[in-house]
Amino acid sequence: MNRYGKRADLIVHEQQPFNAETRVAALAEGALTATSAFYVRGHGAVPEIDPASWRLRVHGLVERELDLSLATLREAFREREVTATLQCAGNRRAGLMAVRDIPGEAPWGPGATGTATWTGITLADVLTLAGPLEDGAHVGFVGADTCPEATPDQPFGGSIPVEKACRPEVLLVWGMNGEPLQPVHGAPVRVVVPGYIGARSVKWLERIEVRSSPWDGYFQHVVYRLLPEDATAGPGAGMPLGLVALNADVLSPADGETVAAGPVEVRGYAFAGGERHVARVDVSLDGGAHWSQAELLDDLGRWAWRHWRITVDLAPGEHEILVRAWDSSAATQPEDEAALWNPKGYVNNARPRVRIRAVA
Amino acid sequence: MNRYGKRADLIVHEQQPFNAETRVAALAEGALTATSAFYVRGHGAVPEIDPASWRLRVHGLVERELDLSLATLREAFREREVTATLQCAGNRRAGLMAVRDIPGEAPWGPGATGTATWTGITLADVLTLAGPLEDGAHVGFVGADTCPEATPDQPFGGSIPVEKACRPEVLLVWGMNGEPLQPVHGAPVRVVVPGYIGARSVKWLERIEVRSSPWDGYFQHVVYRLLPEDATAGPGAGMPLGLVALNADVLSPADGETVAAGPVEVRGYAFAGGERHVARVDVSLDGGAHWSQAELLDDLGRWAWRHWRITVDLAPGEHEILVRAWDSSAATQPEDEAALWNPKGYVNNARPRVRIRAVA
Repeated sequence: MNRYGKRADLIVHEQQPFNAETRVAALAEGALTATSAFYVRGHGAVPEIDPASWRLRVHGLVERELDLSLATLREAFREREVTATLQCAGNRRAGLMAVRDIPGEAPWGPGATGTATWTGITLADVLTLAGPLEDGAHVGFVGADTCPEATPDQPFGGSIPVEKACRPEVLLVWGMNGEPLQPVHGAPVRVVVPGYIGARSVKWLERIEVRSSPWDGYFQHVVYRLLPEDATAGPGAGMPLGLVALNADVLSPADGETVAAGPVEVRGYAFAGGERHVARVDVSLDGGAHWSQAELLDDLGRWAWRHWRITVDLAPGEHEILVRAWDSSAATQPEDEAALWNPKGYVNNARPRVRIRAVA
Repeated sequence: MNRYGKRADLIVHEQQPFNAETRVAALAEGALTATSAFYVRGHGAVPEIDPASWRLRVHGLVERELDLSLATLREAFREREVTATLQCAGNRRAGLMAVRDIPGEAPWGPGATGTATWTGITLADVLTLAGPLEDGAHVGFVGADTCPEATPDQPFGGSIPVEKACRPEVLLVWGMNGEPLQPVHGAPVRVVVPGYIGARSVKWLERIEVRSSPWDGYFQHVVYRLLPEDATAGPGAGMPLGLVALNADVLSPADGETVAAGPVEVRGYAFAGGERHVARVDVSLDGGAHWSQAELLDDLGRWAWRHWRITVDLAPGEHEILVRAWDSSAATQPEDEAALWNPKGYVNNARPRVRIRAVA
């Protein structure tokens, strides 16, 4: 075991703050990702919080401010569970960095994502108790961490529209995969916002603020935004990220792998994001001239990715496996990774390609 | 005026059933599309219905069957309005037919779409009166038309998930752009399902059926589905269409047009579909190597497209204008129109290109 109870096979991009992604081989173990293998995206040191003295403050545009203990949350509200995929907005950034370097950003491969079963209560239940006022259009979350990336440093924060905040899938979570939530994943309580970028699932939650406008802290107002390729990050520059865009990648075989010629099983994941689901995954061995449909595996519900597999017959030689997912709006992924390059390296959802060699 | 009160400049693909699209010049007149220019996609003759004797039957998995007159609908429920873009799933099919012919389907250009203000009542209000039962997962709509395309002929029908059916934007409509709904657009009452393909906005509504499964009539179970390129249409084959995929096209200048060199205004539309909004529109004059951001024009609310414009400086010579829209999940359109070809010619949402010549 690594630090924070993580397996030794994680790819650690940064020790402090801790940033590590899951290897594709570990993702391929199943549609649910083991907690010990689950990716971590941190912006500050993991705060030490005593659950017994932890309080959740709910304030802003509400009829009634709240100041709640963990015991109250557990006793006053019905416990719920959701299986949801989290995905960092920087997932697959390495593909963009291969086009042109992105200094200061972690070279995430396809493992800055994972799927877990989350246990807690609905944010909606807490909001109902507080009573959002009519002009409360956004619900902000503030963590207990200290993030030196901002000047002066500030806790991580972000917001979602109140309409999303009131939906039953948005939870305040203290359990992950049937066990108590670990400190590195946000204990004692984190937010989980299914369908949104991981940055909205704020860890070490301390404060919920109902607001008239989106969160104006550094991480939502400056950082997690998609800039045009020739633009510069700055307050309000670019498009705020929120809903996850349709994405997919190959988990097996690995890029550069040598396999035995003949039937080869190709496996991967596809995630529709937002409120959409994965409707189809196509695989091509001839650069997109012909496509075959992969089998979609375990359906873990509307907030989770789909794993998929297909068996292809490979003659000895070099091959490129090209994949495209389709969502329930019949939208598919863009082709050209280079054309998706952006200064912060977010939302690389280009069709994945892996090059392999088959030997007789 | 053409038949059905339509302007003479519509492009008529078929007289019976009447199928006609709006010219791009007419779409460019404004973000709201004039009723006299609005596209029509019919599957049967326009039925003649006496509003005074018209009844709406609501049945299936409901606590209470309803049989309502138009007068009751008008008196019993609060009138609502929504501005929404409708788009035929076959919009821009001509681009796919240029790749490979699609016999028996109309060669729709980019004008099988338009935006209007719709007036009526919410479907949710009617459903509340009927009381959907717990296993009522889908809400089906049946029109009064007779569609010879099915064997034996049948009225047009389709369904949406009950969750969508209960949202406030889904209306039963009797007004369009401030005037009574015209027969060719579904009078006395049609459904309008914002964010979904036009085929769910069933015209000449007669019957609403709450069901446990999606509509199994010909037009949803066989026709409006996205097939893999080598597949054959059949019951349940392919992916059911529903949510509209992100799309865009150029309205001015027209493909093949000759313009004066110098500053040229480029205009178009972009529509995110589903619950997403258009976040950005990029325009390139060098095949996608560099992109500039267009200005997004009138915001008519979350269910309407965005018109956009940008002024580009054109030297004398041949130019290709390439466009890509982005939605609020930071997803963009696929590049390659040829790779989107499918046997029924649906959902061509490739990045649009127009070729123009600038002269000094």
